Amino acid sequence: MSVFTSRGWALASRPVGEPKASDFGIHTEEVPEPGNGEIQVRNHWMSVDPYMRGRMYDRESYVPPFQIGEILQGGAVGEVTASGHPDYAVGDLVQSMAGWREGFTAAPEAVMAQKLPSDTGLPTSAFLGIAGMPGLTAYAGILRVAELKEGDTVFVSGAAGAVGSAVVQIAKIKGCTVIGSAGGEEKVALVKSLGADECIDYRAAGDYDGLLAALRAAAPKGIDVYFDNVGGDHFQAAIEMARPFARMAICGMISQYNDTEPRPGPNNVIQIVGKQLQIRGFIVSTHADMQADFINDMSEWIGSGKLKFEETVMEGIEEAPNAFMGLFQGANTGKMLVKLS
Amino acid sequence: MSVFTSRGWALASRPVGEPKASDFGIHTEEVPEPGNGEIQVRNHWMSVDPYMRGRMYDRESYVPPFQIGEILQGGAVGEVTASGHPDYAVGDLVQSMAGWREGFTAAPEAVMAQKLPSDTGLPTSAFLGIAGMPGLTAYAGILRVAELKEGDTVFVSGAAGAVGSAVVQIAKIKGCTVIGSAGGEEKVALVKSLGADECIDYRAAGDYDGLLAALRAAAPKGIDVYFDNVGGDHFQAAIEMARPFARMAICGMISQYNDTEPRPGPNNVIQIVGKQLQIRGFIVSTHADMQADFINDMSEWIGSGKLKFEETVMEGIEEAPNAFMGLFQGANTGKMLVKLS
Repeated sequence: MSVFTSRGWALASRPVGEPKASDFGIHTEEVPEPGNGEIQVRNHWMSVDPYMRGRMYDRESYVPPFQIGEILQGGAVGEVTASGHPDYAVGDLVQSMAGWREGFTAAPEAVMAQKLPSDTGLPTSAFLGIAGMPGLTAYAGILRVAELKEGDTVFVSGAAGAVGSAVVQIAKIKGCTVIGSAGGEEKVALVKSLGADECIDYRAAGDYDGLLAALRAAAPKGIDVYFDNVGGDHFQAAIEMARPFARMAICGMISQYNDTEPRPGPNNVIQIVGKQLQIRGFIVSTHADMQADFINDMSEWIGSGKLKFEETVMEGIEEAPNAFMGLFQGANTGKMLVKLS
Repeated sequence: MSVFTSRGWALASRPVGEPKASDFGIHTEEVPEPGNGEIQVRNHWMSVDPYMRGRMYDRESYVPPFQIGEILQGGAVGEVTASGHPDYAVGDLVQSMAGWREGFTAAPEAVMAQKLPSDTGLPTSAFLGIAGMPGLTAYAGILRVAELKEGDTVFVSGAAGAVGSAVVQIAKIKGCTVIGSAGGEEKVALVKSLGADECIDYRAAGDYDGLLAALRAAAPKGIDVYFDNVGGDHFQAAIEMARPFARMAICGMISQYNDTEPRPGPNNVIQIVGKQLQIRGFIVSTHADMQADFINDMSEWIGSGKLKFEETVMEGIEEAPNAFMGLFQGANTGKMLVKLS
């Protein structure tokens, strides 16, 4: 009765440089009835995130590489359609790492599934964004990794993205001056509407010198904190404008994920010494211990209207590769999601 | 009676690239009898240190730039020859920042003068090296900035220098595996004699690929800590071989101090994210609060033979520019000093 078919995406080839449509192939699988200890789930939403690009390389990293021909993985939320597990009932909403597909049957622990909390008042898609991995990334990165203090001047690249837009707002809530960077007028307007004191349009700035001039104009006395989602010129400009003892949380470098050759690093790393900079990379899973505080704070901030979130939604599993590829072209404002049903 | 003449060195011009002899000019001054609250000192030793190169640029930094035509400053130890200050008597040994000259008359606080402790059993020159600024730099940098832990695999560039040779030994005392890098067979032998498990001859390695291969051979499982005195290829190789959560104390980048153009940074900074690296620059004066612990530990370690120190001594004030320029050619093993009398 409850057997259904699920379409899902696998790598057809490892992308070289910018991912392209032919790097992905769609597969149809049967989603069987669950055995003992298993659940059958129909996904409602799936997430595409920049970090997935790293898993498309065949190399050792903090997560294993995707395999050619195997359905990709990623965050998803869905609804239990049949259950062989005592803790799960039909209709339960679950979050899992079994994204990039319309549904699945698996033991919950095999796909890192867990039930969504029912009392948050948040839409289910939020658990892939502001109340999920990207939100915790922003929260842990700006508060713990960057050691945010009231009164700091904070520079956030990728400020219109899922993580960056949360960083902007958390820093404002904590009493900081916040300068964002985003690409294009629409995103700049969004970042300002979220409370940023200034937002640089890095596309309008044109090149490194333009970006640096814009940052200098926005923060003439320099910056105390940099939250990096972008890398490249943004990282270099942040070092250039860093005040003594500035702290940098290096979350991602999306401008470099598709590089096919090693790219020269910031030409001013010597300033790390004299300015006594602290530069820290981080991965959200390292900060899983902050989950309870994160959910408490987020619920309060969202509930009281202090924190807003944006989503860019593409419709249908067919669109998943386009959604993913769009991340590298700045196609998203806030969290990029694929709606599946 | 006690008036004498002192020769001292000033900048004749700001060096462009590698400093050269014509950038320095020698001046003769009369050292007057001390007034009330002043001391007259004949310097016995003066220090040349890599950080001084930074003060030769006309730019804002953590210490003000040297001025053309004014006698340079730096660490010195000498003997009080006349005193108008109640706390100082003729014959007292004092440390000051009035180096690059044979003697001076000044209020102690104007030249950051303080009496040397008399009970350490150390030669006076040690207060310009292992028991002075370079020693504290090593101590604070490896223990606090790099958060050294027993069992760490530690990579130290400039390992035969004043700071590096102390870092090597402190890390060994703390139960770590230590890999140094130094230029030439003689220095490599020294670093090994100080207890390093391995020492790379970066000159023999030739280029970045050679350096990386040598580091990989010495630390096939990677490094937990990097102490940077050199920058450039060494910094990049350290990032490449860093284990997850590696900590880097960035003390100096002597390979880059004479750059006339911005130099591309490490081409692998993207690894900062996935490896969750912590990179911290530091200046010794920030860690002055460690002075008492430092002197206690150093006295014990030197007294018990656990920690040795090397000096490279040039004789006479005439040699001061050569001593300084020699730092950038690797002319020193351990602390580079000029003996004045």
